[in-house]
Amino acid sequence: MVEPIPSGMRSDIAEIPAVVERVLRYDDAAGRAAAAIEGWKPKWVSIAARGTSDHVAVYAQYLLESYVGLPTGLALPSVTTVYRAPIDWHDGLLIAISQSGESPDIRVVAESARAGGALTIGITNEVDSPLAHAVEHVLDCHAGPERAVPATKTYVGCLAVVARLVASLRPASDVATALPDIPGALTATIARADQWLGSGPGSGLVSEMAGAERALVVSRGYNLATALEVALKLKEGCGLFAAGYSSADVMHGPMVLALPGVPMLALRPDGPMGSAIDESVAAARRRGVRPWLIGGREAADEEPATLHLPDDLPEALTPLTYVVPGQLLTERLATRLGRNPDAPAGLTKVTRTT
Amino acid sequence: MVEPIPSGMRSDIAEIPAVVERVLRYDDAAGRAAAAIEGWKPKWVSIAARGTSDHVAVYAQYLLESYVGLPTGLALPSVTTVYRAPIDWHDGLLIAISQSGESPDIRVVAESARAGGALTIGITNEVDSPLAHAVEHVLDCHAGPERAVPATKTYVGCLAVVARLVASLRPASDVATALPDIPGALTATIARADQWLGSGPGSGLVSEMAGAERALVVSRGYNLATALEVALKLKEGCGLFAAGYSSADVMHGPMVLALPGVPMLALRPDGPMGSAIDESVAAARRRGVRPWLIGGREAADEEPATLHLPDDLPEALTPLTYVVPGQLLTERLATRLGRNPDAPAGLTKVTRTT
Repeated sequence: MVEPIPSGMRSDIAEIPAVVERVLRYDDAAGRAAAAIEGWKPKWVSIAARGTSDHVAVYAQYLLESYVGLPTGLALPSVTTVYRAPIDWHDGLLIAISQSGESPDIRVVAESARAGGALTIGITNEVDSPLAHAVEHVLDCHAGPERAVPATKTYVGCLAVVARLVASLRPASDVATALPDIPGALTATIARADQWLGSGPGSGLVSEMAGAERALVVSRGYNLATALEVALKLKEGCGLFAAGYSSADVMHGPMVLALPGVPMLALRPDGPMGSAIDESVAAARRRGVRPWLIGGREAADEEPATLHLPDDLPEALTPLTYVVPGQLLTERLATRLGRNPDAPAGLTKVTRTT
Repeated sequence: MVEPIPSGMRSDIAEIPAVVERVLRYDDAAGRAAAAIEGWKPKWVSIAARGTSDHVAVYAQYLLESYVGLPTGLALPSVTTVYRAPIDWHDGLLIAISQSGESPDIRVVAESARAGGALTIGITNEVDSPLAHAVEHVLDCHAGPERAVPATKTYVGCLAVVARLVASLRPASDVATALPDIPGALTATIARADQWLGSGPGSGLVSEMAGAERALVVSRGYNLATALEVALKLKEGCGLFAAGYSSADVMHGPMVLALPGVPMLALRPDGPMGSAIDESVAAARRRGVRPWLIGGREAADEEPATLHLPDDLPEALTPLTYVVPGQLLTERLATRLGRNPDAPAGLTKVTRTT
């Protein structure tokens, strides 16, 4: 039997461990940016990003607040680009994230923040892009050219950059200690998720989603970013109306959408946050939904199936691994649906919004 | 013919002009809070909220940044309640929004911020609630008891509180000047939207959504809050997978979901932001979608139909009126689908997440 040629997306995902290894090996720019932050002593952080990069921003917000104690929010680009608001940027740190570095609105926010007196850092896969030239510190996500339009290795690469920056700011933290384990954990995750989704019980998840037009993806805390990103991947790659939600926010309304026939996927890390997520999973079960779980050792082995991922990572680093099964799920589901996972209709690699 | 008894939700919506009138008439608490902000000189603002209140928070973020120049972000409650992060609250202003004032996580964030050195303001419909007791300044949204579980008059009441606060901070702004016109504009909006959705061309929107399980609601800028809130209302009240998006973010991926058979509603204010939104509407049209528009005088009269609302308001105040047709749409659609708009299965008035 001839092996099918893997999709570009599948090849991109296979490179993720190497991408993170490059971020960890070469990126003393993160150390310089961390030193600049320590010298600058920002009172607050604003992060400008769109699409997949917006989920990197959500991760960065959790990490900067929880590990560094810096109050952090997500910027509203149109406040600057359309309303031309006189934001007082002094004492601020602006982080702009764009894989292509090309979106004019993100660049303009970075320029305004810098001109207005903020320290500026850019995270990008294109170190010669307009965004890279607009900021004082450029952090390269070292992903190399991405074959597929939906971002996979650039997403995890950008998460790794954020974790690397926080590790430089907090060298005694578990994030700093465990970061070197990430490439190995990613390799194990890809193998385990591939088996689970292919010939394992997770193949049922692919089938269930193939018959659905809607889905729910929930998590909370660091992995809220993962839930939002997996939902976006399923939208982009498979045309699924996948709603990504904080498992707390889902209790404030959207739980109405949890119904039999609507596949639900929960990302459930070990620890207290996992227990909090369990409450929403239990509420969904009471509504007749049987959620699929991806998590660590504490994730319950309930029907229909649970994928257990390497569980010796601090929770703050699990978004780097937990997203990968969602990326692989998207690639398999798109292929099953007869879609080209590398080039979804209506999507472009570089999006220029103003 | 006997008139049908209006639903509680319909009665709640009918009271919105009076709610806003009360906010404007009685709320000198807003003036005191504004004076406290001016004395405090916060460097940044964080807003803690969930569900519908989270969309009030989005509105407040746009308004505080655009009119007051205060860098503003949305808080992540779990950073405080689960991760117990050592956020540096000094120089900050924390605004907590909860209609019931009962959600423990929002209260705990307010308590932590206050203990950590932030100025704290609460916006609520329950001035004797745990949240109200946790903050230094309580702003009442004056909605009175809400009959239906989905929030309608409390939502607009809270928006009015935010606008009232900003008007106190910027008494020479168009927001301050035009605020007194809002009750009248709301009365006109309810009448116009009722006619449009009932016997007018908007009845086709109700029919189109009745046959759909998915929908897109888009806007940008001040009315991003409206798009998110209308989408949530359609989820809660009608079980529709309605995705609410910034019309810029939708270009970064979710445009894939814009397809014939998926109703799309765009909220399109007059002015430069409206022109920016037009680009996404045009992109959807190229994909074969025929979006419905709600907007001012500049909103194009294209197929299938456009609802023109009172257009002499500054854009920053249009979220108070533009949401109302979405609320009325939800009530009509729920009734059409045989659902009880006042008590969607799976939803409770008071949600307690930790």
